[in-house]
Amino acid sequence: MRPDDANIVGNVHGGTILKMIEEAGCIIGTRHCNTQTGDRCVAALARVERTDFLHPMFIGEVAHVSAEITYTSKHSVEVQVNVLSENIVTGAKKLTNKAALWYVPFSLQNVAKIIEVPPIEYSGPEQEEAGKKRYEAQKLERLETKERNGEIIMSVSLPEPYTVAFSQSSLIHLIGPSDCTLHGFVHGGVTMKLMDEVAGIVAACHCKTNIVTASVDAINFHRKIKKGCVITISGRMTFTSNKSMEIEVLVDADPLVEAEKGKYRAVTAFFTYISLDKDNKPLPVPPLKVSNAELKCTVI
Amino acid sequence: MRPDDANIVGNVHGGTILKMIEEAGCIIGTRHCNTQTGDRCVAALARVERTDFLHPMFIGEVAHVSAEITYTSKHSVEVQVNVLSENIVTGAKKLTNKAALWYVPFSLQNVAKIIEVPPIEYSGPEQEEAGKKRYEAQKLERLETKERNGEIIMSVSLPEPYTVAFSQSSLIHLIGPSDCTLHGFVHGGVTMKLMDEVAGIVAACHCKTNIVTASVDAINFHRKIKKGCVITISGRMTFTSNKSMEIEVLVDADPLVEAEKGKYRAVTAFFTYISLDKDNKPLPVPPLKVSNAELKCTVI
Amino acid sequence: MRPDDANIVGNVHGGTILKMIEEAGCIIGTRHCNTQTGDRCVAALARVERTDFLHPMFIGEVAHVSAEITYTSKHSVEVQVNVLSENIVTGAKKLTNKAALWYVPFSLQNVAKIIEVPPIEYSGPEQEEAGKKRYEAQKLERLETKERNGEIIMSVSLPEPYTVAFSQSSLIHLIGPSDCTLHGFVHGGVTMKLMDEVAGIVAACHCKTNIVTASVDAINFHRKIKKGCVITISGRMTFTSNKSMEIEVLVDADPLVEAEKGKYRAVTAFFTYISLDKDNKPLPVPPLKVSNAELKCTVI
Repeated sequence: MRPDDANIVGNVHGGTILKMIEEAGCIIGTRHCNTQTGDRCVAALARVERTDFLHPMFIGEVAHVSAEITYTSKHSVEVQVNVLSENIVTGAKKLTNKAALWYVPFSLQNVAKIIEVPPIEYSGPEQEEAGKKRYEAQKLERLETKERNGEIIMSVSLPEPYTVAFSQSSLIHLIGPSDCTLHGFVHGGVTMKLMDEVAGIVAACHCKTNIVTASVDAINFHRKIKKGCVITISGRMTFTSNKSMEIEVLVDADPLVEAEKGKYRAVTAFFTYISLDKDNKPLPVPPLKVSNAELKCTVI
Repeated sequence: MRPDDANIVGNVHGGTILKMIEEAGCIIGTRHCNTQTGDRCVAALARVERTDFLHPMFIGEVAHVSAEITYTSKHSVEVQVNVLSENIVTGAKKLTNKAALWYVPFSLQNVAKIIEVPPIEYSGPEQEEAGKKRYEAQKLERLETKERNGEIIMSVSLPEPYTVAFSQSSLIHLIGPSDCTLHGFVHGGVTMKLMDEVAGIVAACHCKTNIVTASVDAINFHRKIKKGCVITISGRMTFTSNKSMEIEVLVDADPLVEAEKGKYRAVTAFFTYISLDKDNKPLPVPPLKVSNAELKCTVI
Repeated sequence: MRPDDANIVGNVHGGTILKMIEEAGCIIGTRHCNTQTGDRCVAALARVERTDFLHPMFIGEVAHVSAEITYTSKHSVEVQVNVLSENIVTGAKKLTNKAALWYVPFSLQNVAKIIEVPPIEYSGPEQEEAGKKRYEAQKLERLETKERNGEIIMSVSLPEPYTVAFSQSSLIHLIGPSDCTLHGFVHGGVTMKLMDEVAGIVAACHCKTNIVTASVDAINFHRKIKKGCVITISGRMTFTSNKSMEIEVLVDADPLVEAEKGKYRAVTAFFTYISLDKDNKPLPVPPLKVSNAELKCTVI
């Protein structure tokens, strides 16, 4: 576990552990589903059961991740994963996490086709029975969640295409150790890379094509950003010509833990993007629809 | 240049190039400001002048980045950086970028102290004169931008602390090659890591302390997410007890280039976080203020 | 060098340096083999000669990697690489590493075809003669290692402290797109970095202190590893002296999806580590307890 896997105090992020769990599950699931003749396949994650983080893991500890297939239905595989943390200096080992994941194998030849899963052998009929119960329970829950989510998407009202609001995007990023200089302040280059990422997403949202950075206007770094800050990088289309798009990108920093310092604007810039077809030839850019309310804002 | 440095068509991101430029500028700037006795220092980026991307760079090409100090004032350094792309298979070389960056050296002993910059020798008085003009011009522009940005921050009205709106956060991420399986679909583990990141930021925004993941409720992967999609991961506090916070995290995918497919909800989950003091002991969580309007929403 | 390139005490991992060395070697080797008409090609790493880590490198230092072609046979290129560390704050520069690597150019049109290498000009006949000797010597050693690796690995016993079994460790990694060359085969440097990581864990398990890479014996790349393979990197302590530990690292590749091809041994090497106290002073290494059963094994 490295500094970037953890927060400022040294606790490894739950997300880092979840990622390792899934990697182990994917490997064992894919391996199992390829132990038969027929289409080659890849196991895709369908569901993770509720999981608790039993003990914190710290920077410098070694994580041991072990996985086992515990149930197979016709089209799905259940994998149980255990995570142990080992302090290799003291020798202490702790169980930090137990998780159960469900995978579905998709054919490599035909991405939409689900493969039949070769059955496993159970140590006894109770094991098979218990597995079947878990399978039925998760199937039911998945169905319910799906329905609930179907409803929500219906109710979302999107802004009109080609308006400023339609392509407006923002990204939050927690400043980690490897983003920083010896001083503990973020590298300008790291900030610029994220700013370009947001500008690129705004440009791609607007014209739905392949886009590339054509130029960047002067970038001013008003205030430094410290390790542990959360930065919000927001981009919005400010101008389009037939050939290019101009996007304003703002970086605001929030020193979460030193809350008394408050949020502040740290960096500002304008990026220019062009739209390209598949042969890297320029494409015309759809004109930006600007409302009256937005026109007033553009003075800023 | 690797697959992760580029978009799906193989064009290297402008942001990747900007990051290399700044790295070169920071190294040469820091080295120059330490060529004297006295405090050791690190060069912090203050401004990047307007820069054009003259030619695209592609995956597999080698980037040559060269930097030179072209002007020094009492407290700042101007660095000019050139970027060449080399195709090591065909031997073709192209100038892809020219940039000018301004750095200010800060003391390593006292982070707030700016160091005096040792002067460089100019090849002639015209070079020095031209440098001085660039220096004055950028100084003026920086001042103007600063004023404009002072105004904006004043006018931002923040939601009240401890409400749902106050800690609500979202993150956009462009699915790149190394996020994906052989199939070209994102690894479940990558998505979960980003979901935990957003949930963690929501939790930290709410209680302004060190926080850790305590558990994750069942995560359902409703639909697969393809390489090149932009995903929006949004988190909001749904419940607090004295000891923990529950955060709902939603993942929506937008297949930018295949726009006809539309945006869809791909993954949903609930994360539970606890707040810790500096000795990893649990802290009480400030109660969530829920307005009437929001109560209606919580059925979702 | 960033925090993620180093261990907790700030020493840059030997694996990070090996990866940079290989990157430089691959660029110069590929460039040289494409200076003629005919098939375009990519240089694949075949062997790294024994290399010593002369000085530690630390976070915040700048690494200067320079490479030169020193011998060419009909089908292989020898590249010598030097690594200097520069502390840009104090100005101190140190030679940290000298390495010799052998590359074989494979056609981009036909992955199985080896290209003829254009000859280089030597500064004198002695240079050419010395190069030829190095070439013959490594060819012989490669053959011997290949034979030895035909034998199969023995079974594992129980973990008593300071035994081989106690510190034995292994790591699995799924080869993703950003680990690979244009060919779709893993970069030698990526493999070496993971090998150093496993060797480091074995060394730390054994002596429970801060450890650093002191040298690496010749590394032989027997077979290429394709994108999508799962590799198992296993390390075990083979010898200890008062001052150092020798760890054997084996890389086995499993082409999950093309299961009929079977698992195969791809790379082998010996790493030497030393144990350090908090001031980077060498510490004595606890002697390795070797059982009779294991003694028989060490023939491998």
